[in-house]
Amino acid sequence: MEQNELAKTVQEMESRLAKLEKNSSQLTMVLFSGDFDKVFAAFIIATGALAMGKKVSMFVTFWGLDAIKKPVMKTAGRQLLEKMVLWMRPKGPNKLGTSKMNFGGIGPRLFRYMMGKKNIEPLPSLMEMAREMGIKIIACQMSMDVMGIKKEDLLDGIEFGGVATFLSDSFASNTTLFV
Amino acid sequence: MEQNELAKTVQEMESRLAKLEKNSSQLTMVLFSGDFDKVFAAFIIATGALAMGKKVSMFVTFWGLDAIKKPVMKTAGRQLLEKMVLWMRPKGPNKLGTSKMNFGGIGPRLFRYMMGKKNIEPLPSLMEMAREMGIKIIACQMSMDVMGIKKEDLLDGIEFGGVATFLSDSFASNTTLFV
Amino acid sequence: MEQNELAKTVQEMESRLAKLEKNSSQLTMVLFSGDFDKVFAAFIIATGALAMGKKVSMFVTFWGLDAIKKPVMKTAGRQLLEKMVLWMRPKGPNKLGTSKMNFGGIGPRLFRYMMGKKNIEPLPSLMEMAREMGIKIIACQMSMDVMGIKKEDLLDGIEFGGVATFLSDSFASNTTLFV
Repeated sequence: MEQNELAKTVQEMESRLAKLEKNSSQLTMVLFSGDFDKVFAAFIIATGALAMGKKVSMFVTFWGLDAIKKPVMKTAGRQLLEKMVLWMRPKGPNKLGTSKMNFGGIGPRLFRYMMGKKNIEPLPSLMEMAREMGIKIIACQMSMDVMGIKKEDLLDGIEFGGVATFLSDSFASNTTLFV
Repeated sequence: MEQNELAKTVQEMESRLAKLEKNSSQLTMVLFSGDFDKVFAAFIIATGALAMGKKVSMFVTFWGLDAIKKPVMKTAGRQLLEKMVLWMRPKGPNKLGTSKMNFGGIGPRLFRYMMGKKNIEPLPSLMEMAREMGIKIIACQMSMDVMGIKKEDLLDGIEFGGVATFLSDSFASNTTLFV
Repeated sequence: MEQNELAKTVQEMESRLAKLEKNSSQLTMVLFSGDFDKVFAAFIIATGALAMGKKVSMFVTFWGLDAIKKPVMKTAGRQLLEKMVLWMRPKGPNKLGTSKMNFGGIGPRLFRYMMGKKNIEPLPSLMEMAREMGIKIIACQMSMDVMGIKKEDLLDGIEFGGVATFLSDSFASNTTLFV
């Protein structure tokens, strides 16, 4: 290789290298679960990464959508089955059950109480904190469609997308978690 | 460094760089769960990645094996406990329960109905599509051995392997999910 | 670029490249679940990776802590709620339930029996093996704090840390799993 050609190759490689290195500045998650404990873990990881200066992208799908619902939901204009499913699912972070020891809803209260005693941020504030720190939340349009969830039922300021959105973030991230 | 030596180093580095870049063309999954909703999510992610031109490797283990069983299984020649476990587990994508709201099997029917109304591909076609698009499915031999599942009980055309197969795919993938 | 300058750039790039390549020599896990089957899968993956010469870091949090508890736990000096939760949770790998087919504790026995018949290492030995092979286990201090778990309640020789410890390992690993 000529000196000039070599210099050009090196410069090109440097930008390819920088692109790969950028992957360790991003974290991607699928929030599939709507269990209080798992959603809590997801947001602890998210805020931790944000505090370390990483970009965080969270793709929320299936039961995970329960966590980003507004507490009040008008179900007018939905099909009967959609209404039934929406009615049975918890609405927002304060209504989620735990994956273990739920005991008909006593478990989550107990855990919230125990966490409060240790001065741990409650889930809604943790989620708010993540949003202030710049987390990108993408609600899965297909899941919303299946369960009859509308954009106005979910938190303001989130994005909407499909699996391709998640995948392109994930392929640009060193760490991808399915929670 | 001499000009020649430098050129050689650069060339060598370029192939190392290309190898690392290749990682973003591969996605690896462990399908541990056999819940309808999680299996569905796994195959939505898989077909999405395949459509983007990525290679997808899915290592199916434990309950995930339920999803790739043939609908009819002859349990002759198994030990009593194996027979019992096989008899109790669902066989194939149409028999899987959901992780939430299963209601003794009504839940999955309800979801299949709601998904059909939105023109979403049913799970068996989604799985078939993934296979036509070239997904690599590897059934975990150890799990098969423990539960007394034989090769002929599972879908045709899948591969069989151990954790090392999964790990070598995973270390060559930017994204690895445990579902 | 001058020859000298070029050589310097190339050398610098080589060390950046080596750093990225190192990522495929590390595996990071969050062990969130305390289900026998998932803990077993996590340690099969861990020992597999260790046998391939990889470094393995396992961040144990929430229910996962059940798996690394000592079989006997003195609950003196805890608050009432903490005592209750500790009393209800399984202690150590031999007491874990399965995520499916638990049948009030019969399931895990059945699986242990079926695994023994196939000469598969029992979970406690698998865990011991992972530790001898050099796995790094980090117990999540926040979860311990919430549930009133003390350092002396957990296996000897493990480390203690927070989400930042997990994240920095994860960003240096090609594969990160949330189990």
